[in-house]
Amino acid sequence: MTQLSNAARQYSRTHAEQFRKELRDFLSIPSISTDPTHAPDMRRAAEWLAAHMQDLNLENVQVMETAGYPVAYGEWLGAGPDKPTVLVYGHYDVVPAEMADGWETPPFEPVEKDGKIYARGATDDKGQLFIHVKALESYLKTAGHAPVNVKFLIEGEEEVASPNLVPFIKEHLDLLMADVCIISDTSMRTIEEPAILHSLRGMTYVEVEVQGPTDDLHSGLWGGAVHNPALALVEILGKLYNPDNTIAVPGFYDDVVPLTAEERAMIAKTDLTEAQYKQSTGVPAVWGDANYSIRERISARPTLDINGLWSGWAGPGPKTIVPAKAGAKLSSRLVGNQDPHKIFEQIKSYIEAIAPPTVKVTVRLVTTGKAALFPFDIPEMQAASRAYEQGWGATPLFTRGGGSIPVVAEIADLMGIPVVLMGFGLDDDGLHSPNERFSIEMFHRGIETAIVYLDELAQLGS
Amino acid sequence: MTQLSNAARQYSRTHAEQFRKELRDFLSIPSISTDPTHAPDMRRAAEWLAAHMQDLNLENVQVMETAGYPVAYGEWLGAGPDKPTVLVYGHYDVVPAEMADGWETPPFEPVEKDGKIYARGATDDKGQLFIHVKALESYLKTAGHAPVNVKFLIEGEEEVASPNLVPFIKEHLDLLMADVCIISDTSMRTIEEPAILHSLRGMTYVEVEVQGPTDDLHSGLWGGAVHNPALALVEILGKLYNPDNTIAVPGFYDDVVPLTAEERAMIAKTDLTEAQYKQSTGVPAVWGDANYSIRERISARPTLDINGLWSGWAGPGPKTIVPAKAGAKLSSRLVGNQDPHKIFEQIKSYIEAIAPPTVKVTVRLVTTGKAALFPFDIPEMQAASRAYEQGWGATPLFTRGGGSIPVVAEIADLMGIPVVLMGFGLDDDGLHSPNERFSIEMFHRGIETAIVYLDELAQLGS
Repeated sequence: MTQLSNAARQYSRTHAEQFRKELRDFLSIPSISTDPTHAPDMRRAAEWLAAHMQDLNLENVQVMETAGYPVAYGEWLGAGPDKPTVLVYGHYDVVPAEMADGWETPPFEPVEKDGKIYARGATDDKGQLFIHVKALESYLKTAGHAPVNVKFLIEGEEEVASPNLVPFIKEHLDLLMADVCIISDTSMRTIEEPAILHSLRGMTYVEVEVQGPTDDLHSGLWGGAVHNPALALVEILGKLYNPDNTIAVPGFYDDVVPLTAEERAMIAKTDLTEAQYKQSTGVPAVWGDANYSIRERISARPTLDINGLWSGWAGPGPKTIVPAKAGAKLSSRLVGNQDPHKIFEQIKSYIEAIAPPTVKVTVRLVTTGKAALFPFDIPEMQAASRAYEQGWGATPLFTRGGGSIPVVAEIADLMGIPVVLMGFGLDDDGLHSPNERFSIEMFHRGIETAIVYLDELAQLGS
Repeated sequence: MTQLSNAARQYSRTHAEQFRKELRDFLSIPSISTDPTHAPDMRRAAEWLAAHMQDLNLENVQVMETAGYPVAYGEWLGAGPDKPTVLVYGHYDVVPAEMADGWETPPFEPVEKDGKIYARGATDDKGQLFIHVKALESYLKTAGHAPVNVKFLIEGEEEVASPNLVPFIKEHLDLLMADVCIISDTSMRTIEEPAILHSLRGMTYVEVEVQGPTDDLHSGLWGGAVHNPALALVEILGKLYNPDNTIAVPGFYDDVVPLTAEERAMIAKTDLTEAQYKQSTGVPAVWGDANYSIRERISARPTLDINGLWSGWAGPGPKTIVPAKAGAKLSSRLVGNQDPHKIFEQIKSYIEAIAPPTVKVTVRLVTTGKAALFPFDIPEMQAASRAYEQGWGATPLFTRGGGSIPVVAEIADLMGIPVVLMGFGLDDDGLHSPNERFSIEMFHRGIETAIVYLDELAQLGS
């Protein structure tokens, strides 16, 4: 810990109220990327952030166009080329929020209550990305300079699967190039158990459609002589898993990187008891591959979930039809070296192989995302661990994340750098739900941890 | 054929235009029983029919209340107690129809075009029930009397599963008692191939719901350790059928009355070729129990169809959840002596037996209907056959209907009488579809056949 970072931490404490006031301003912009009617708010949010970075005397501040919503960019490169450069990725867009969904206060009128800030985007991701802006500010407003160079890449399409981000990074690779990337867009279980994610699952998302008759048929006129497409679908999907709850798609596990004994020991530290599991989910009994613990299943092992099913009549009362079509959305969370496109081909081939000739089955790719897996013994990860010890006051666990942030693998691949996932949210912050919130204490501890991390990175050299 | 019926047939020919004008008036009332906003139209249709019967000097004409929509009743008992009494059942309610569904002319502004009357309800069932009103009128307006007694029971809730009809029949059993019941609410393949149905399938309609987690879960946070309820559902439903396309529910076929060689020979006369089947349905290959012909499968054998499936996200694009729930609607068309409630218990027990402990599965009964099966060598059926020969000009086939009209079995059971299903529609009349229509020629041939049938019944004595 240096005098530089101590002064910055002190500044962050004395300016806590102001920081939160600014965050509330940012949160009050309904930058909902899934709803085109909010396009003006999207631009307003990007411009608000750019103006804010400008006020802090960041350089090269720009609202940069993409084929979709713009990116807010800003940098401070005053540490010089012999110091590391950190790329902070975040997103200013949020998912929809309506009072009718059960909000106790208007989702875009942030309020502080019981130690939390309530607003859509509070934890996902405006509050978390703002931590890094405030960490840099704390250096600039005290010493006038920071220990490392910092670049901000804040996009507006994370909640719609970032369709334009990879092209944007490729186009501006020189501008964005860094030595390490930090993303704060994840969460920990409790404030005492900070976690650094060193892996994320990838994704292959597919849609399966079964076409039977040309139109819905009267089940009295045709029932018994037509292979009901809903039946054909359930017969196919009923074969996705083996009786031991492993996935039956041939070759599915081929490229999974096995867990090491060390990793399993680390993961065991955060394993869930059956009671915790049941309380969190409400399901009557644990399910999954018995060769792996619950925590391993939800983070280090690949999955194949049915996300949606539809066919025929789902309204009230009876309707006696043989439906024309049935469909399903399936998605696989991938790990290790599983290639999303190879997995798609495997799922497609398997479904086509078991599809009966009595119906027409189509398997379409919806979206993919690569899994990311970083060693946690590299200097950038260990520096982050020390930053938590000092800034947060607890030693973080390195854990595997069960979710998917496709940009992580993309940044790692395109820039050849590690991505450090310092999530400052809590698992029960209610992201994407009514009454989304962000702990005020964690906001401030996050800023101090980020301050220390920049300092720790400076010690590593560039 | 008697002079009496010849005069009535002649009358029906000279009054053809007038009959159709009246039918168009009846069809112009949007008596949609599934839509409560049409409640006033429902009453208007019942009152129109009652007023019409009154104009024809029927007796005891009433709009009779039920717990739902009213019944239109009228009778003519002038043939005296030594002549048979015929109960005509029909329904004045129709299913919804909107121009947006693809109607070429407004569904409640009947038009005659290319030898057909286009309107919602034209064939189902206003046009068909009106045949019997016009047959009786043709006697009353010529001889002044008919050869048999006739009662009309025209309900308004057939399209919503007749929830109040059985209580109504029980309450008014003396009023309604007859020697034979005629229902015209079915169809034939072509005008040259009239058919009398001597059986209908029954029904057991159930809803299956699988509850997994309390709420939808993030598939990244929980995928891999939660038995996805949509997966559990497809695993269960994937076991409904055996590999030979017979139904796997234990005991399901126990009470099926086997087809006799004579019946199979009769059914073979109307069997479908694979080419006809494919053209009618659009499916790529025939499916079903290979021990039975296509026609047998769709009429004389029981079924178990999935009528609807739902779970999670069915909208566009990806949503990465483990859904909280998944559900299905299943219905079984029953034959012979299969008891709908016993079948429900068998389906429920089977599903509960194969349901895993990792989810909560509920099987609910939605509705039931008894199958009906009458011998076709009884005098009332043979008299109908003769009526077609003379009135229609072709010998009808006795066939089994694949559909369900639950009231048929109820009337047979409550009154101990046969029900003769003289369907005057065509299979491609588009019932429940846009541009529903009724052949004008068949309307008039139907009236003449009905006229002759009353005469044939008179010869049987009471």
